[in-house]
Amino acid sequence: MTLLDITLTLAPTLPAWPGEPHARLERLQDLANGDPCTVTRLDTVVHCGTHVDAPAHFIPGGAGIDAVPLDVLMGPCWVADVADSVDSLTPRVLDGLGIPAEARRVLFRTRNSALWAQPAHDFHTDFVAFDRAGGDWAVARGLILVGIDYLSVEPFHHAEPWVHRTLLAAGIVPVEGLDLRAATAGWWQLACLPLKLPGADGSPARVVLTRDAD
Amino acid sequence: MTLLDITLTLAPTLPAWPGEPHARLERLQDLANGDPCTVTRLDTVVHCGTHVDAPAHFIPGGAGIDAVPLDVLMGPCWVADVADSVDSLTPRVLDGLGIPAEARRVLFRTRNSALWAQPAHDFHTDFVAFDRAGGDWAVARGLILVGIDYLSVEPFHHAEPWVHRTLLAAGIVPVEGLDLRAATAGWWQLACLPLKLPGADGSPARVVLTRDAD
Repeated sequence: MTLLDITLTLAPTLPAWPGEPHARLERLQDLANGDPCTVTRLDTVVHCGTHVDAPAHFIPGGAGIDAVPLDVLMGPCWVADVADSVDSLTPRVLDGLGIPAEARRVLFRTRNSALWAQPAHDFHTDFVAFDRAGGDWAVARGLILVGIDYLSVEPFHHAEPWVHRTLLAAGIVPVEGLDLRAATAGWWQLACLPLKLPGADGSPARVVLTRDAD
Repeated sequence: MTLLDITLTLAPTLPAWPGEPHARLERLQDLANGDPCTVTRLDTVVHCGTHVDAPAHFIPGGAGIDAVPLDVLMGPCWVADVADSVDSLTPRVLDGLGIPAEARRVLFRTRNSALWAQPAHDFHTDFVAFDRAGGDWAVARGLILVGIDYLSVEPFHHAEPWVHRTLLAAGIVPVEGLDLRAATAGWWQLACLPLKLPGADGSPARVVLTRDAD
């Protein structure tokens, strides 16, 4: 079986969303200091690094991450290859990607992924994401999960969270902050597992692609 | 496909290891207060709730959770049913469980699981775990992953972390804090995905069992 980890290492040096704190790892105990064991404490906004958004992030009264169905987060998944010249996932671009009609989970590998060659960088605001009509396209297409290789499915400059609201209201699960550098286009099996945080608006996740060896 | 979530909800009310803080979820922004979105911050010891231990927890210079191989954390898994009368996973008990010789990943469902009917409880010190010789048994048996349904593979009263050291030194991955109430004995596919925390001694994880529907 081929197994591909498409998760960013959740390091304090990852770019944080402007205005939000970086993830922090603190040693409460350390074998190196003579303690009986090493114990780390993790302090992170739930949208740091590779993560899943829940409806509660943008929809009043929306479901928390613990209610996002596992049978959406796990299953067959199509990785779509988006040319480096593409700035925005518009309906025209999306129609041209050759995504099979039966694909319900789609990860979009864009030029964003190249940014993860240097995971310790300042937040980029010019990442590739869905434009407003691209969000509608995902709903019309009947997708249940979309993945993107920078920290939001939504362009940084949007005045309102149009794409998030569209996707989340339709029950489409956004997976953000994927490292798709090594993910070749085509079919995979997705295992995308966020923590089971009660009522939270999202969670960091470990995300893995597998497929039978050729 | 049958899909079973064997993860505890990572709530602040879960029992914390004596002397360690409970998990904390803090709202940094909240739609209900007029903020543009809801944003939660998670602050937790990496051994809270359902979690995976890394060698770095007890072995000086040991590998971090980000280096625990995914092909150990995912794959065929045997759920063993341990009678409620059993206090300790001794070699004699383990030999009597009927675990197939080819099982490399084994989850032990003990009377501990009944405690998760009330997940908000004070830490129990009398949970079922491996005795020292039981840890040696797991190594001799060639296991690569063991799961237990309370917060440690090691009895609370052990003066030294014998079981942890034995398992971790042998490359056996301990998965702790599983809720196995609904896990019937037999073969499943395991997906046990901790966060990718750099060099950390463990991580909360989402743990799921699947199998083909009967």
